[in-house]
Amino acid sequence: METLKTLLEHKTIRKYKDKPIEEEKLTNIFKAASRASTTGGMQVYSIIKTEDEKMKDKLHEIHFGMPMLKEAPVTLTFVADFNRFNKWCEARNAKPVYDNFMSFMTAAIDAVIAAQNACVAAEDQGLGICYIGTVTYQAKKLIDLFELPKGVVPVACITIGYPNEDYPQVDRLPLDAVVHNEKYHDYSEEDIDKVYEYKESLDSSKQFIEENNKETLPQVFTEVRYPKKMNVDFSNTLLEVLEEQGFMNNSMDE
Amino acid sequence: METLKTLLEHKTIRKYKDKPIEEEKLTNIFKAASRASTTGGMQVYSIIKTEDEKMKDKLHEIHFGMPMLKEAPVTLTFVADFNRFNKWCEARNAKPVYDNFMSFMTAAIDAVIAAQNACVAAEDQGLGICYIGTVTYQAKKLIDLFELPKGVVPVACITIGYPNEDYPQVDRLPLDAVVHNEKYHDYSEEDIDKVYEYKESLDSSKQFIEENNKETLPQVFTEVRYPKKMNVDFSNTLLEVLEEQGFMNNSMDE
Repeated sequence: METLKTLLEHKTIRKYKDKPIEEEKLTNIFKAASRASTTGGMQVYSIIKTEDEKMKDKLHEIHFGMPMLKEAPVTLTFVADFNRFNKWCEARNAKPVYDNFMSFMTAAIDAVIAAQNACVAAEDQGLGICYIGTVTYQAKKLIDLFELPKGVVPVACITIGYPNEDYPQVDRLPLDAVVHNEKYHDYSEEDIDKVYEYKESLDSSKQFIEENNKETLPQVFTEVRYPKKMNVDFSNTLLEVLEEQGFMNNSMDE
Repeated sequence: METLKTLLEHKTIRKYKDKPIEEEKLTNIFKAASRASTTGGMQVYSIIKTEDEKMKDKLHEIHFGMPMLKEAPVTLTFVADFNRFNKWCEARNAKPVYDNFMSFMTAAIDAVIAAQNACVAAEDQGLGICYIGTVTYQAKKLIDLFELPKGVVPVACITIGYPNEDYPQVDRLPLDAVVHNEKYHDYSEEDIDKVYEYKESLDSSKQFIEENNKETLPQVFTEVRYPKKMNVDFSNTLLEVLEEQGFMNNSMDE
C-alpha cells in the first residue's frame, strides 16, 4: 500500500532545489516508463532528456518562459514515435502502414502511459514533477529543437527535481462526479452546482476570480487561461504538425 | 521503493479469477486516478465503470469478442470529457470554447494519465490489468452504448480483476533505444539491428512469425496485427467521431 500512498499524496512541484538527480534514480525512472503497458508490445514512443544548460534555455523560451524549465535539473519530453518501428519494418521487408491518424493516437497514448509511470517512479524516489501542458501547443518548435524526424510528435513533458516547496494538496472534484456507473449520467444544473460547490467555496478560487477581474471561476478559464483564440490557433498548428510529421494519410492510396 | 517494484514488475493480466473486486479497492483506484495531474486542475475526463453482466456482454461484443471483457469483474473506460466543464461554464455566465482539436487532445491526455494511475493502484492492491486498445477503434459504438453526450470521447479502457495466470515478463527494447540525450538520434540500419536484436532472438518471436506464416516479425504487424486497411478505416471513423462529438470546430466562427 506504499504505492497507493505515493499516488494519493501527489502534488505538482514547480520549485526545485539546485541539486542534480542521481543517475541511478533517472535510470529507475526510464525503466519504470519502459515497463508500462504499450500497444502490441511495440513501444511506439521515445523520451528526450534535457539536462544541458543551453538546451534548457531554449526549452524555457519555447515553453513561454515558465520558470520550471530553467530551474529543474531534468526535463523529459515524451514523443509519440513510429519512426523507429517504421525503420525496423523497412529493414525487414515489411511495408510500414502507420502514416495515419489512428497510428498517431496509438503512439500518443503509449507515450502518455509511459510519462505517468515516469512521474510515479520519480515521486517514489523523493523527487517532484510538473507536467508542462504547452508541449502540444509548441510541438512544431520542439520538433525543430529536438530534430524529430517524420513519425515523431511531442505529446507530454515533465520537469523533475528535488522539491523546494510544499503546500496543501489542491482540490479535486467529488469521486461520484467523475465516475459513472454503467452509463454516462449527464449533469443537470443542480448536479453542476453540487459537483463544483467545494471548488467554488475555496478562498483560492475566490482570489483567482478577483485577481483576474472576473465574475465567476469558469470565466477565468474561458477568457484568461484557455481562451478561444489560443485553442483554435494551437488546434490548427497541431493538425499541421500531424500532417507534416506524416500522420494524416487516411486513405488507402500509397 | 515499494512503488518502483510495482512499476518494474508490471505484467499485463488477461485471465481473471471469478472473484469480485472489493468496494474499498475500487474506491482506492478511483481516488488514485482522480489524484493524477490534470491540465489546469480541470479534470476533463470521466470514468465509466462496467460491472453489470448485460453491459459486459455488450462491451465484449464491441471489443471484438476479446475474452477479458467477459471474464474481468470490472472494466473501466476512460473518456476525454469536456461536457461537465462546458456545462459548468454555461451555468456560470462563461462561454465554453472547447469544441476544437486541442481541447480533445488536452482531455485525452488527462484521461490517459488518470487511467495509468488507476492501473498502478490496481496492481498495488494485488489486482491485474489489461489495456484494451480497441477502445479508440470502437469509439462510435461505445458512445452509443454508454450514451456519451457531445464533448465526450472514449480514449482508454482497462479490464481489472484478480490474476488467474502468471508468466515471465515480456521483453522491452534496451533503454538507450528509447531514451535520447538532448536531441533525437535517428536510427541507422545498424542501430535498428541492435535495438531489435534481443526481441528477434526470442523463441516467442520466432513462433509468432511461424504461426502467421510470415518471413519477419515486422510483417506480422504490418500484414496481420495492424494492417493498413484497419488503420485507415479506424482513422476515418475516429475523425468522424471527433467531428460528431464537437471537437473539430477549429475556426474562430461561432
